[in-house]
Amino acid sequence: MAADEHLVETPLASRVLAKGVFLEVRIDDVRLPDGHIATREYIKHPGAVAVLGLLDNGHVLLERQYRHPVRRVMLEIPAGKIDPGETLLGCAQRELLEETGYTAAEWARAGSLHVAVGCSDEVIHLYVARGLVPGRQQLDHGELLDVTSLPEGELDAMAARGEITDSKTLFALQWLQRWRSGAWPLQWGAA
Amino acid sequence: MAADEHLVETPLASRVLAKGVFLEVRIDDVRLPDGHIATREYIKHPGAVAVLGLLDNGHVLLERQYRHPVRRVMLEIPAGKIDPGETLLGCAQRELLEETGYTAAEWARAGSLHVAVGCSDEVIHLYVARGLVPGRQQLDHGELLDVTSLPEGELDAMAARGEITDSKTLFALQWLQRWRSGAWPLQWGAA
Repeated sequence: MAADEHLVETPLASRVLAKGVFLEVRIDDVRLPDGHIATREYIKHPGAVAVLGLLDNGHVLLERQYRHPVRRVMLEIPAGKIDPGETLLGCAQRELLEETGYTAAEWARAGSLHVAVGCSDEVIHLYVARGLVPGRQQLDHGELLDVTSLPEGELDAMAARGEITDSKTLFALQWLQRWRSGAWPLQWGAA
Repeated sequence: MAADEHLVETPLASRVLAKGVFLEVRIDDVRLPDGHIATREYIKHPGAVAVLGLLDNGHVLLERQYRHPVRRVMLEIPAGKIDPGETLLGCAQRELLEETGYTAAEWARAGSLHVAVGCSDEVIHLYVARGLVPGRQQLDHGELLDVTSLPEGELDAMAARGEITDSKTLFALQWLQRWRSGAWPLQWGAA
């Protein structure tokens, strides 16, 4: 909007600083609103989908997975990158099935999360699933994780103690609590 | 712990895939629990601190800033990278002053957030500040942002509509609401 003209940067040039198997790092030149030129480095990411699975017994569906960047086992909700041409809901259903073996009868789209706007374009789209039916995991080669679950109250207590620190998992807990309070609405549809 | 032996990966080798002015990308070889070798790419980040500033009029202190990676103006709480040798609280006080001009009488350490555990070691430590006194911004060269504020209820309504998507800002709103409800405690100290 016009009120943002004094903030908006104009892209001038973009090049790939590095390209790994998963990560692409770009370095762009931009013109600042005051006319100066600056460079911006960031990760290009295809985007991801995360699934808050609500089990019939009142537990939240979770995974325990070792994450090498932070050198620890993390407690997280299921999530994964969007494949080319895949819909967000299609990705949510695929990741839930592959990582946990579950399918769900009902789905609702919750919010989206920009994880690190200063250095990445990554966005995680959150879905909520209920009517969960267990089945068989279909993990990728080299993907190792335990499927587990916790009551909502225990998840909240762990977050208060700093034992849940994963951004998408905390965002899911936030949506769950705000939805239950009536403040953040969800629209459910059949799978 | 012993129960995690079937998940934990053993680091074997690490090299720098790319190093920009701000970003460092590493590619590591790891041994999986089953003996296979895999590679892990991720961003090395120095860590950051974010500040939830509570104004005496009940508003939350915010910034509007253009973020080139996501090509939009984002509404965010103040935050910045930790300088070498800097304490977390020292970083929080410096970033609050530099970006907004405010100093605060009381500080409390809230939780920490791992923004993207699959591809980055970045952690953001959240502080809450109250007894805020306005002063003069000390922005870095090329750093452009508007300081603003919103009532807590308006921030919540914007988050429900998907108009707040920044991870640290949503985490701050979550802490604020859980703290006010009595569930997530804060311990206050003088600056």
